[in-house]
Amino acid sequence: MFYTIDILGTIAFAISGVLVAIDKKMDLFGILIIAFVTAVGGGTLRDILIGETPVSWMKDITFTYVIIASTVLAILLRSKINYLRTSLFLFDTIGIGLYTLIGIEKGLNAGLHPIICIALGTITASFGGVIRDILCNEIPVVFRKEIYATACILGGVTYFLLIKLPIKSNLVFIIAGIVVIVTRLLAVKFKIALPTIYSHNKN
Amino acid sequence: MFYTIDILGTIAFAISGVLVAIDKKMDLFGILIIAFVTAVGGGTLRDILIGETPVSWMKDITFTYVIIASTVLAILLRSKINYLRTSLFLFDTIGIGLYTLIGIEKGLNAGLHPIICIALGTITASFGGVIRDILCNEIPVVFRKEIYATACILGGVTYFLLIKLPIKSNLVFIIAGIVVIVTRLLAVKFKIALPTIYSHNKN
Amino acid sequence: MFYTIDILGTIAFAISGVLVAIDKKMDLFGILIIAFVTAVGGGTLRDILIGETPVSWMKDITFTYVIIASTVLAILLRSKINYLRTSLFLFDTIGIGLYTLIGIEKGLNAGLHPIICIALGTITASFGGVIRDILCNEIPVVFRKEIYATACILGGVTYFLLIKLPIKSNLVFIIAGIVVIVTRLLAVKFKIALPTIYSHNKN
Repeated sequence: MFYTIDILGTIAFAISGVLVAIDKKMDLFGILIIAFVTAVGGGTLRDILIGETPVSWMKDITFTYVIIASTVLAILLRSKINYLRTSLFLFDTIGIGLYTLIGIEKGLNAGLHPIICIALGTITASFGGVIRDILCNEIPVVFRKEIYATACILGGVTYFLLIKLPIKSNLVFIIAGIVVIVTRLLAVKFKIALPTIYSHNKN
Repeated sequence: MFYTIDILGTIAFAISGVLVAIDKKMDLFGILIIAFVTAVGGGTLRDILIGETPVSWMKDITFTYVIIASTVLAILLRSKINYLRTSLFLFDTIGIGLYTLIGIEKGLNAGLHPIICIALGTITASFGGVIRDILCNEIPVVFRKEIYATACILGGVTYFLLIKLPIKSNLVFIIAGIVVIVTRLLAVKFKIALPTIYSHNKN
Repeated sequence: MFYTIDILGTIAFAISGVLVAIDKKMDLFGILIIAFVTAVGGGTLRDILIGETPVSWMKDITFTYVIIASTVLAILLRSKINYLRTSLFLFDTIGIGLYTLIGIEKGLNAGLHPIICIALGTITASFGGVIRDILCNEIPVVFRKEIYATACILGGVTYFLLIKLPIKSNLVFIIAGIVVIVTRLLAVKFKIALPTIYSHNKN
């Protein structure tokens, strides 16, 4: 099941990359690279930081196929993609829930401190978008008005609070993932953003 | 012979970095760093992704000397560098042919899938320029109107098609390199660009 | 003592990140990430290039605490931070002296050429700022008008000149660090910048 979620998340991330790259008038190669980077960038940075190389997308060709197929479809159906925005948003949100936990698990396997594990989870879930925005010459959106990373951190904290209790680790995994997903959904529904420190809250 | 080509490619890449950095009014240190990053950035990213560290330019000081010397010469002769543009373009093109194949070979040695090997070859040949453009606060030119990466990919595909035939691997290597070089030369000569998906083809 | 300097440098780097991020109107998460990246970015890139992973800040949680605390304090006291600019500048300068030498030492331990070691030292001291500026969508300031990197290089050269003489290595370490610090202080005091190659020296 986790593998299926991983694939769905990859599709959603890749398509979000395609949409940004089209906005920037990139050519086909540029669009494909941005799709790729958005989908695998976070996991790649995580793997590099902990030294787990070759990085994971290089060892499982499935992700490459999924990203190429998603990119082609997104380009062909780009005029109709608005109808899919809700599904894509759901895939994306479920994806970050899973990615956060994959990052945490890899951190634990590397023997790292819980706070560092949460950082790794957040990196896995959010740095694909950061690298996408840097390549597109934008200040990363996640730094400006997204509750994205906060959802990952909350999920990570939940994981480490529950894992000490006598609960099955699989269940803890699922609950923590749901915390990420629900936080993100509620934040978007009620337009909650992180507080800014500026006098005008709209920025 | 491959080593000589590698050096020529490094010179061409370094000088292309110097020219962009001068355009951006950088100081001497900035120019040197951009030259360096353009020349070794692709190979560095490749080595990091597959975990072959310390990365290769750190293990052979020759490249550092070549880059420093190229940078100094390019700065001194910058008003005359236009006369060299054809030679530089040839060095650059031969360089990407070689870099593509070095990347593929390193991927094979790491036991990776052919498609991943082609990706590694393309990264080796093109990401020096990508990192250069990011440091100079530009959207990478390779994503917008270059046939650059496509030439690498075609060369890579040629390699994997021919390597299955009863041809000496050295010869396959050379043919695949020539495919990269010829594709790039033809593309520039006939101003072929990747198709864009936008209604106005000039972007 | 070196550990204390490392902490002071981390504080100064983190605060410099906070100030840039506030300028860019980032939200709390963005500010924290920029503080983090500025403080540990250089050492992280160094560790990745030589393959010393997990990277160092992941193995010592102290730095994470220090960066979070510095960020919170810098945000709360941001209107008064001007009074601290001199202290922060001193911390920062002492920090780069130390970071340069840590980079050199790690290069030596990895068996690298002295010039590569100096490059590693300079990367450790200056690339946190480079990554900060890239994330904030600016051309890195260190490439345009800072004597920063030059100070690191001079300190590195001093180290390798003195280490051959019959001087205790601890003393060489300290002298080289002082060279970095004094170069930077003098450069700022007398507004020395690297020569540019452009006809108008103000850029």
